[in-house]
Amino acid sequence: MQVAQEEEKGKEEERAKWYTDVIQQSELADYSPVKGCMVIRPYGYALWENIQKPLDQMIKDTGHQNAYFPLFIPESFLQKEKEHVEGFAPECAVVTHGGGKKLEEPLIVRPTSETIINYMFAKWVQSWRDLPLLINQWANVVRWEMRTRLFLRTTEFLWQEGHTAHASEKEAEEEAAKMLEVYRDLAENWLALPVITGTKTDNERFRGAVRTYCIEAMMRDGKALQAGTSHYLGQNFAKAFNIQFQNQGGELEFAYQTSWGVSTRLVGAVVMGHGDEKGLVLPPKIAPIQVVIVPIYKSDEEKILVTERCKAIAAELKGSIRVHLDDRDQYTPGFKFNHWEKRGVPLRLNIGPKDCAKNVVELVRRDNGEKMRDFSQDGLKEKLEELLKKVQQDIFDRALANRKANTVSATSYDEFKALLKEKNCFIEAYFAGSNEDELKIKEETKATVRAIPFEQKVEAGAKCFYTGKPADKKVLFAIAY
Amino acid sequence: MQVAQEEEKGKEEERAKWYTDVIQQSELADYSPVKGCMVIRPYGYALWENIQKPLDQMIKDTGHQNAYFPLFIPESFLQKEKEHVEGFAPECAVVTHGGGKKLEEPLIVRPTSETIINYMFAKWVQSWRDLPLLINQWANVVRWEMRTRLFLRTTEFLWQEGHTAHASEKEAEEEAAKMLEVYRDLAENWLALPVITGTKTDNERFRGAVRTYCIEAMMRDGKALQAGTSHYLGQNFAKAFNIQFQNQGGELEFAYQTSWGVSTRLVGAVVMGHGDEKGLVLPPKIAPIQVVIVPIYKSDEEKILVTERCKAIAAELKGSIRVHLDDRDQYTPGFKFNHWEKRGVPLRLNIGPKDCAKNVVELVRRDNGEKMRDFSQDGLKEKLEELLKKVQQDIFDRALANRKANTVSATSYDEFKALLKEKNCFIEAYFAGSNEDELKIKEETKATVRAIPFEQKVEAGAKCFYTGKPADKKVLFAIAY
Repeated sequence: MQVAQEEEKGKEEERAKWYTDVIQQSELADYSPVKGCMVIRPYGYALWENIQKPLDQMIKDTGHQNAYFPLFIPESFLQKEKEHVEGFAPECAVVTHGGGKKLEEPLIVRPTSETIINYMFAKWVQSWRDLPLLINQWANVVRWEMRTRLFLRTTEFLWQEGHTAHASEKEAEEEAAKMLEVYRDLAENWLALPVITGTKTDNERFRGAVRTYCIEAMMRDGKALQAGTSHYLGQNFAKAFNIQFQNQGGELEFAYQTSWGVSTRLVGAVVMGHGDEKGLVLPPKIAPIQVVIVPIYKSDEEKILVTERCKAIAAELKGSIRVHLDDRDQYTPGFKFNHWEKRGVPLRLNIGPKDCAKNVVELVRRDNGEKMRDFSQDGLKEKLEELLKKVQQDIFDRALANRKANTVSATSYDEFKALLKEKNCFIEAYFAGSNEDELKIKEETKATVRAIPFEQKVEAGAKCFYTGKPADKKVLFAIAY
Repeated sequence: MQVAQEEEKGKEEERAKWYTDVIQQSELADYSPVKGCMVIRPYGYALWENIQKPLDQMIKDTGHQNAYFPLFIPESFLQKEKEHVEGFAPECAVVTHGGGKKLEEPLIVRPTSETIINYMFAKWVQSWRDLPLLINQWANVVRWEMRTRLFLRTTEFLWQEGHTAHASEKEAEEEAAKMLEVYRDLAENWLALPVITGTKTDNERFRGAVRTYCIEAMMRDGKALQAGTSHYLGQNFAKAFNIQFQNQGGELEFAYQTSWGVSTRLVGAVVMGHGDEKGLVLPPKIAPIQVVIVPIYKSDEEKILVTERCKAIAAELKGSIRVHLDDRDQYTPGFKFNHWEKRGVPLRLNIGPKDCAKNVVELVRRDNGEKMRDFSQDGLKEKLEELLKKVQQDIFDRALANRKANTVSATSYDEFKALLKEKNCFIEAYFAGSNEDELKIKEETKATVRAIPFEQKVEAGAKCFYTGKPADKKVLFAIAY
């Protein structure tokens, strides 16, 4: 028993070290001199841009507009919504001095922008004609964190935060559901991360929201990672900030609202959701480099021949494929193989003099290590495009298989505890416990309810695994990042 | 004399009011509850995105990579470069508390990121092989401002800041020049703002730089606006942050650096560089909406007919033109004309039942008010694309003509003062005065040296307009925003 726990602790430490090593060695990010803040290096930022771009398009395609609101929030604003202040007050960075003087009212560096955005909404919304108001912001936010982890939990992070106001509860609820679906689409079809969609329990709900929806992904180690949330806020903020509109019947009514966000945490999700002992494994659709070409030569003569061919191939692929030719002279091919494997580049083409003669390349897949010798150079672009699609799908399928293999059911608390001891996993269980029961389970096992999944197949006569009471829903438990 | 001054003051106030009115009425931006900070509204943010997009591409095309560095900077960092701290210390916002506790060392909200980026550069640079290091960051920065003005001068603003390190002075100087050229390209070919390129005098130089290059644009009222700067930093920051590399000869050497930036101030430049009494005039290449369609009808029957045709035209234009169909039912065509004129949409198509019958539209240009009746619907997309190019060029030409008409020469200080009394203008003058002379001129006339233009035609025996001494250069004086 003691031994098993020590072993688990050892594995845990090893995984944590693997994670930070991979991020630093692949140059996604680096530690900064400011406690809890990281530097996103070019390779990591390019990955983030490749996540931002499709998401920004989806946000616009669903009728939202980008805008920008101040970094600073008057301290008094945070106190207007009771639950909200309880949630954020201990996490804030506070500006007390500006322009060499002490400020009359301290300014909070935004931990999220609900308050200041809703202050502006109150100015802009008068009539039902002004609704819906569908706003998104790309911004940095700050939450003072004690224990930080690159990308997953940092004092400052980058995110987008959507904020909307609607004329009816129904419309706002539909909006919250629609944006969760956008996040599912992004996670599954771009990040190749299968996710569970569902509702958070009261304990896990965003403070100030009526309901929080989420997407939850399983990492390769069996832990859960919350990858995005969408909140139905009801009229909570509208009442706190007096966002009232004249409805079609001529009466004043408080607006119904939502907010939703994903952050640079998604980069961490990609690292831990797909990475292996060699480093990153990047889904082609978001990989900063999709295909790397490594020329192989011994003599100067070979170098000229091979480099020329590599350049021609790179030129052919460019435009439709993000290709990089690694023609650095000071490194060996072996060094380069390792370099690009660590960085998770989906496909590598090795090209030597014999390949040139035979009009072929050696093609290596990063995700499964498959090596294809004598891969013809004819129609290379089309074949690589096809292969990149296949790699994208295979990475998704592998993550899905991993989740299936590590998702179990529990019918009693003893079984629940035994399962968690064995390994990290998703546990589906009928649950009818109270908020306090949930907290007790967390305290004893570290597992939390990640979601009440939307997809439910509830059997007649189902009983809660913890209380034994009749249960009308299954929930998903896991240990989370 | 007194009367003239009062008149000028009145005009000045009127122009200031025009500027803020236009920005608020066109919904580019709004005042926020945080002193000196503004809210960039969707229309303004879309305009900023249309400036960002081509610039980001140009920055990448010239070999730079985006990255992200912390918002907060340890207070001690700012003190490492002497001139830099003198420049920024009085302007800073200071975080003294985080996570509910007083911080051991206060954190500065970045006014610019030279210090923290160079701290990281010192970690990353060891050998000449690590150079050049070509980094760009899109970020928000904060400089405490007493007198703020929407877009032009706000406590928080958005910008990009490039930071590079090189193995030689020559290469760094070339980089600074190259990025100034990128800014010129952006200003002239996208924002339709002709600019003067040149060097700043010591008084106007960025603190910590060896040399500051700039692009200066003339606004429609004859004042100057600094639209972008590029700095050759020499080894100043490298010495302060110990960025040393082993050069090819095996010796340790401090890196040579540059930094360069443009900001949301460019949106202000577009407003004041092109706007007229009706509101914004947007160059097509950056306009969020390039063509707006206004259906005109009286009966329900006409409405169906006209709206259907308008939708078909919008669908035809979409993809290659940013088109918007204003089919709001609660507003009259006259209201809509005014609405879109205020917002500077380059082209408007008015379409009524007769137009449908005749297969034509009424086309109105925003920049010069030209109205083209019976403009055939055949090949509309191609014709509008051509016309948008022409409008872009015409807006540039008009701004250039305005600058030429308001650029004068002065050969004596009396003449100089008389010219400035008459109207705001650019004054080219031979100058050989000292830093103190320059400050004296500023104190007495408010005019500053905007640039020592790169393009110089110096006549033999030229004399300084202020000191009468022999002068080897012309400088450009103006009153600046």
